[in-house]
Amino acid sequence: MPLKRKIDFQKKKKQVSRVHTKMGKAPGTISYLGTKDKTASKVYATLYSGDSLMEEETIDIAHILDIKASDKTAWINVIGINDEPFIEALGTKFGLNPLVLEDAVNTEQRPKIDEYEDYIFGVFRMLYLNTGKEIVGEHVAMVLMENTVLVFQEVEDDVFNGVRNRIAAKTGRIRSRAADYLFFALLDAIIDNYFLVLEHINERIENLEDEVYNNPKPIVAQDIQELKKEILKIRRWIFPVKELISRLIDSENSLIEKDTKLFLRDALDHMLEINESLQIYREMSMSLMEMYMSNMSNKMNEVMKVLTIMASIFIPLTFIAGIYGMNFDHMPELHMENGYYYVWGLMIVLFIGMMVYFKKKDWL
Amino acid sequence: MPLKRKIDFQKKKKQVSRVHTKMGKAPGTISYLGTKDKTASKVYATLYSGDSLMEEETIDIAHILDIKASDKTAWINVIGINDEPFIEALGTKFGLNPLVLEDAVNTEQRPKIDEYEDYIFGVFRMLYLNTGKEIVGEHVAMVLMENTVLVFQEVEDDVFNGVRNRIAAKTGRIRSRAADYLFFALLDAIIDNYFLVLEHINERIENLEDEVYNNPKPIVAQDIQELKKEILKIRRWIFPVKELISRLIDSENSLIEKDTKLFLRDALDHMLEINESLQIYREMSMSLMEMYMSNMSNKMNEVMKVLTIMASIFIPLTFIAGIYGMNFDHMPELHMENGYYYVWGLMIVLFIGMMVYFKKKDWL
Amino acid sequence: MPLKRKIDFQKKKKQVSRVHTKMGKAPGTISYLGTKDKTASKVYATLYSGDSLMEEETIDIAHILDIKASDKTAWINVIGINDEPFIEALGTKFGLNPLVLEDAVNTEQRPKIDEYEDYIFGVFRMLYLNTGKEIVGEHVAMVLMENTVLVFQEVEDDVFNGVRNRIAAKTGRIRSRAADYLFFALLDAIIDNYFLVLEHINERIENLEDEVYNNPKPIVAQDIQELKKEILKIRRWIFPVKELISRLIDSENSLIEKDTKLFLRDALDHMLEINESLQIYREMSMSLMEMYMSNMSNKMNEVMKVLTIMASIFIPLTFIAGIYGMNFDHMPELHMENGYYYVWGLMIVLFIGMMVYFKKKDWL
Amino acid sequence: MPLKRKIDFQKKKKQVSRVHTKMGKAPGTISYLGTKDKTASKVYATLYSGDSLMEEETIDIAHILDIKASDKTAWINVIGINDEPFIEALGTKFGLNPLVLEDAVNTEQRPKIDEYEDYIFGVFRMLYLNTGKEIVGEHVAMVLMENTVLVFQEVEDDVFNGVRNRIAAKTGRIRSRAADYLFFALLDAIIDNYFLVLEHINERIENLEDEVYNNPKPIVAQDIQELKKEILKIRRWIFPVKELISRLIDSENSLIEKDTKLFLRDALDHMLEINESLQIYREMSMSLMEMYMSNMSNKMNEVMKVLTIMASIFIPLTFIAGIYGMNFDHMPELHMENGYYYVWGLMIVLFIGMMVYFKKKDWL
Amino acid sequence: MPLKRKIDFQKKKKQVSRVHTKMGKAPGTISYLGTKDKTASKVYATLYSGDSLMEEETIDIAHILDIKASDKTAWINVIGINDEPFIEALGTKFGLNPLVLEDAVNTEQRPKIDEYEDYIFGVFRMLYLNTGKEIVGEHVAMVLMENTVLVFQEVEDDVFNGVRNRIAAKTGRIRSRAADYLFFALLDAIIDNYFLVLEHINERIENLEDEVYNNPKPIVAQDIQELKKEILKIRRWIFPVKELISRLIDSENSLIEKDTKLFLRDALDHMLEINESLQIYREMSMSLMEMYMSNMSNKMNEVMKVLTIMASIFIPLTFIAGIYGMNFDHMPELHMENGYYYVWGLMIVLFIGMMVYFKKKDWL
Repeated sequence: MPLKRKIDFQKKKKQVSRVHTKMGKAPGTISYLGTKDKTASKVYATLYSGDSLMEEETIDIAHILDIKASDKTAWINVIGINDEPFIEALGTKFGLNPLVLEDAVNTEQRPKIDEYEDYIFGVFRMLYLNTGKEIVGEHVAMVLMENTVLVFQEVEDDVFNGVRNRIAAKTGRIRSRAADYLFFALLDAIIDNYFLVLEHINERIENLEDEVYNNPKPIVAQDIQELKKEILKIRRWIFPVKELISRLIDSENSLIEKDTKLFLRDALDHMLEINESLQIYREMSMSLMEMYMSNMSNKMNEVMKVLTIMASIFIPLTFIAGIYGMNFDHMPELHMENGYYYVWGLMIVLFIGMMVYFKKKDWL
Repeated sequence: MPLKRKIDFQKKKKQVSRVHTKMGKAPGTISYLGTKDKTASKVYATLYSGDSLMEEETIDIAHILDIKASDKTAWINVIGINDEPFIEALGTKFGLNPLVLEDAVNTEQRPKIDEYEDYIFGVFRMLYLNTGKEIVGEHVAMVLMENTVLVFQEVEDDVFNGVRNRIAAKTGRIRSRAADYLFFALLDAIIDNYFLVLEHINERIENLEDEVYNNPKPIVAQDIQELKKEILKIRRWIFPVKELISRLIDSENSLIEKDTKLFLRDALDHMLEINESLQIYREMSMSLMEMYMSNMSNKMNEVMKVLTIMASIFIPLTFIAGIYGMNFDHMPELHMENGYYYVWGLMIVLFIGMMVYFKKKDWL
Repeated sequence: MPLKRKIDFQKKKKQVSRVHTKMGKAPGTISYLGTKDKTASKVYATLYSGDSLMEEETIDIAHILDIKASDKTAWINVIGINDEPFIEALGTKFGLNPLVLEDAVNTEQRPKIDEYEDYIFGVFRMLYLNTGKEIVGEHVAMVLMENTVLVFQEVEDDVFNGVRNRIAAKTGRIRSRAADYLFFALLDAIIDNYFLVLEHINERIENLEDEVYNNPKPIVAQDIQELKKEILKIRRWIFPVKELISRLIDSENSLIEKDTKLFLRDALDHMLEINESLQIYREMSMSLMEMYMSNMSNKMNEVMKVLTIMASIFIPLTFIAGIYGMNFDHMPELHMENGYYYVWGLMIVLFIGMMVYFKKKDWL
Repeated sequence: MPLKRKIDFQKKKKQVSRVHTKMGKAPGTISYLGTKDKTASKVYATLYSGDSLMEEETIDIAHILDIKASDKTAWINVIGINDEPFIEALGTKFGLNPLVLEDAVNTEQRPKIDEYEDYIFGVFRMLYLNTGKEIVGEHVAMVLMENTVLVFQEVEDDVFNGVRNRIAAKTGRIRSRAADYLFFALLDAIIDNYFLVLEHINERIENLEDEVYNNPKPIVAQDIQELKKEILKIRRWIFPVKELISRLIDSENSLIEKDTKLFLRDALDHMLEINESLQIYREMSMSLMEMYMSNMSNKMNEVMKVLTIMASIFIPLTFIAGIYGMNFDHMPELHMENGYYYVWGLMIVLFIGMMVYFKKKDWL
Repeated sequence: MPLKRKIDFQKKKKQVSRVHTKMGKAPGTISYLGTKDKTASKVYATLYSGDSLMEEETIDIAHILDIKASDKTAWINVIGINDEPFIEALGTKFGLNPLVLEDAVNTEQRPKIDEYEDYIFGVFRMLYLNTGKEIVGEHVAMVLMENTVLVFQEVEDDVFNGVRNRIAAKTGRIRSRAADYLFFALLDAIIDNYFLVLEHINERIENLEDEVYNNPKPIVAQDIQELKKEILKIRRWIFPVKELISRLIDSENSLIEKDTKLFLRDALDHMLEINESLQIYREMSMSLMEMYMSNMSNKMNEVMKVLTIMASIFIPLTFIAGIYGMNFDHMPELHMENGYYYVWGLMIVLFIGMMVYFKKKDWL
């Protein structure tokens, strides 16, 4: 727990410096805001048509432009977005607006789709589970142009591997379709990972539920609150995507063919399902807290019952013993031959009476 | 309880593998995601007009196409959707889009109605009570075409029996009307079962209410939370249907006649009522939890009162007994002839005083 | 309380059989679903114009048709809707759609207004207080046709008496206006009764408030929950009416004259007020529960304070008495001449000190 | 408190009779529903143009009509609306619809603006603080006609004095503008008083906050609930006004000049601010209750700590004293020379140990 | 804490007098409502084009008009808005509507953008952190005219320094663009400060979270409530801005060029992000309170457990000691040689039994 908190704290620190970095700068200034160390960008270029496929790694912008100029479908995947001069040079050559480039490297940019004359620009948040089963968010920007999809990613990861494999293996329709289908396929890969993240949350809710029922320690309440916060944060990245896809479907941009819209409608369906699930998980996490409080209350009741039973039984008995511990000169009972046994009898009767009373009250 | 939890856990497991199955596959890939074992599909074909009726079971796709080609109304009911090659072959012959077929066998597909040029495709969730009075959800997909309704079901069940009987018995208008009315009649049968499910929930709420009032054990809180979760999950399947029917009524598709829309409006009314009921049940289940907490609080108060009364009465009395148990050389009271009786008198007065006090405070 | 619960239970039973009755039947089947015993329907016919008035009771359908055919305004009031053959015969003669007749006798039908070519059909819920000051809901269906208003009621009641009297006494404009005004007047009578029901709820809230403040027994919490449930149920019947009237005002149906719309706008105002009140009552009932919980908490605090004061004062004193009850050979205090009095002095000082402490803490 | 409750009760009584008064009457019947005693109405007529001003009091309807007929701007202010025949006569001469007159004297009418052919009719709720710092609600109806504003008020009050003074003193633009500006100015005066009411509520919230923090007595919870109820009731009168003004701005009625709409837009701004404030006050009052509960909990904790510390320290010590109060023949410690002092030593060690333990737990 | 409260109280006082100041005045009256002392206004004029830059301070209105008349871009920044005659003179010369001037000096004016024929008028709330890390709100009004942006500020501050520096340093596009871009740049500077304020709130939430987890003192609950109130108040100033920018983007006013709208869309993105964050912070602050209550409950449980364990162990032991402190003549155990040790043995067995029992219950 303290470790986690520390990490949160550092995140906050970064964000402060992020805002301080931006403050007072002109809009359209391209400045990377993420937390990755400064490294050179890499570019994976994939050029394919129905019967040809070429993959290569290059950072030669002129060569990339040649690839883009081909009449085959090109997927230009830029890995690493904190090499600002390279991004700016590449973007300018591709004819992108400076505001687009600013958003492309702004790792805190909220999901958006903007349509420009010659291209469609989208920013999304990849969410996936790392090896430690933590939810990781990664900024990704995609530009759909005639014959080309240009992708900006922070780091190399597995999210787009499925698409890459399908292109290589000629699975499905991807090789026979244009850049708009590639754009959709990449978006679909991102959405597929949202499902995995949701499952992970579902699993955590079920684990917490078990703990709330069986072992409601204070740490569980803390975990529930952490979960609620995480859902809030994830929702922020996921929620806007539905609306964006919906607007893309309604758009009359010629870059997106009518056939591809059928697939986008499918993606929209998925986003609807994801948003509903998030809503359900949110309500479930709130119920968890309620359940936790109710269990705390139960435990308190149990503690109080033990105390009340012990005190109610032994305080009167101790009182009786106290009576016959008094030192009055004249206490006839003390001198009765069986007085001691009579008192024991009285005490046992009282004890049994109390037990019956508590039994009746259902406290035992 | 532990049994139930186990089942939940297994469901979760399945869902994980479901997502893993889909990950990285191309959209439009037909893959069954449900939990039923792999078996061959069965097809029940019903062909009827005002004065003729033919029912048969077949899996000969050519023959099914012949039936569809007839100018009578055909109801092609496919039972079992995990025989993917058969589904694909049948769907292709019927001219259905691969995305439609993917949704038809996707048992987690959220309710939807999509209009295509020649057909209307709908996915719904049958909800019914099994013999153990548990709510069961079953995926059903329906395609309305010219003269034909094609239905995909996971298993054979009773939900559509009423419609089948009405066709056989010539009850109502079903025999004299076209395929769009059949589509409506099947949808109406699904909605009728929603009412049964709601009643079941209502019954559970009333039972829980009785338990909260009369016997608020911790297990009751758990049951209330289970109920809340179940309502959340049911709502997810039921809630979208209203909007879908409403869009169908507004649609200008020539497959649906104006007369049938009157009936759809009736179904819309039912969905409105169902959604309202769900909302009411939701609020009632939240009130239940509140009531449970208030009863817990009452019980705690009662426990505390018993403790306080016992302690407040006997602690002072014990103190008095303690006084006269002291061994000072000079304690005049000890040597008074009736000292012992005076002390008893004092104690009884104190006891009665305390009782009166608590009576006044309304604690007894 | 148990009596009330029993009634609820029976209601539920009825509803179950209701759904079972409907299940599998064709839509448009006319079947009464209410809980009234089967009796023959009665029909009160009122025929009036500015200067003539005729009232009679008849069940001769041909005669009723003659009355309808008159060019005066006719009010055909059918009492008793479980004589299904009669309803069907009458409805068919009046040219009503079977779906309309089904809704007319469906006592669980949610409020609706449907416009057909020649008539407007509305279903509402009369809510009124019976002699036992309980809220009673009664299904009423009204059909506005050229010159005629046809009303279906479950039982005879007082709700429409005011309208009947105004027709008889020529009060207001009712005699000089057409059937659409009569339709409005009947609806207005229903709405007026909603106000009475709201007042009754307001009264109950105020009574509960008094009890929460002065006598917060557990039964009060139960009553608050009952009230919340009742508000939920009433809202369901009342809430849709506003929207229905609003649509009627916007409708371009020639059956409703422009002048009558002014009156409908007035009714809409009333419905707005009613819905707002319901919302306020709902929030007030939630505040009541909160207040109840806060009072429970106060009482617990008070109980705990009594316990703590008693225990904190007498436990230390008893300890001191215990000290001098020990039997050590050498205890010098025991042999001091005034030792006993010194101990009393010490105890009194302690007692006063404690009292001052608790006084300061404001616990006394 | 009991006094206040009594007043509430009487209010309720009045309202019952109000509904009973209306029940069964024809719509458009002019009947005063307020609680003021029946008195004759008074009429203040103000007639002004840029350079002339005439003020008089009259109840001569013919004379009032003459004033209205002038081409200057007339403000006809009727005080007292329970003289129904006078209201009816005046209204009829002014050509007002009976429904308008009914609303004009209906003191429970919710805020509304209705546009008729020749006039605009508005009902609002004046809210102001009386001398006892209580919020008073007063019904006011205003009719904007060509050159004339007709106002109906229940009693004479100070709300419109500012407008009257500005007319007299030629302040601002009011003398140079038409009746629509007068209508706006009166509405603006009403809205200005809403701000005063809000301030009063703000003050009460801050006082309650102080009490919750410093002196959380049960009566405070009751006051918070009263405040919440009052906010609910005020909101009901204030909330609809925003929408009404907004519709007036969008209206194309020739009675309202384009210039005046700029001022209405200003009033709309104020209503937005007022509605936002009400919302904030509502959330703050809910937070107050939460804070109160949390403070109750704190106090309970404190009480429990005192009890636990006292009991935990002295019960073990008393046990030790009890040991050496036993009368066994063979108890070697009793005969040790310093046994008594050793026991004291043991007790003091225990006492200090306990204190250290509780200090560590931060309970002292 | 008491200091803060005092400040709040004074604010309230001011606001009262503010309303009292306004009451009864004609709309359009220019009266400063803020809390700053009356001082003369200062005017900073900046006149720039792509290759020229002139900055000066002046209060000569004729000279300012000359600057405005230039065909370069002019930024007229008025500091100090309580010199009403100067503001009125300046505003009149610039051709501004009196209502605009009223809003320009109304420090309580809610954010708004009004479009007039020749200019666009906007009011915003600058929010920034002062040196004491408190959130300060400052009223700012901006008028966009042909070639000119006129700004009214209460005091001199750092918010616009970034823009001023960019103009001086020719950074970005600001020098090459028209007044509409300057208007945007100033708005953007205000929005950038909102991010800083949000970060500050985030920091406070995290600090409070730490305190709730580690040190849940009553003061923490108070701090959480203060935070909730502050979020409510900030939201009021920030929330409307999104909608205003959105309307500006949709506006067809010729003062705003199409290019500038791209930048406004960027600002809209920021506002969306800010509003989402505010919403998240609000839910987090509510969770904090919940967590605090749950921790209070935990602590209570812990206190009760200590009490119960102590009482349950020592009350029975004391009872046994009491038994053998009785003075009966015949108590055989007292005369057994090892009686005393047997009793000790019994007590130790009881003690261990109790410890085991509580260990099992997981209370130790």
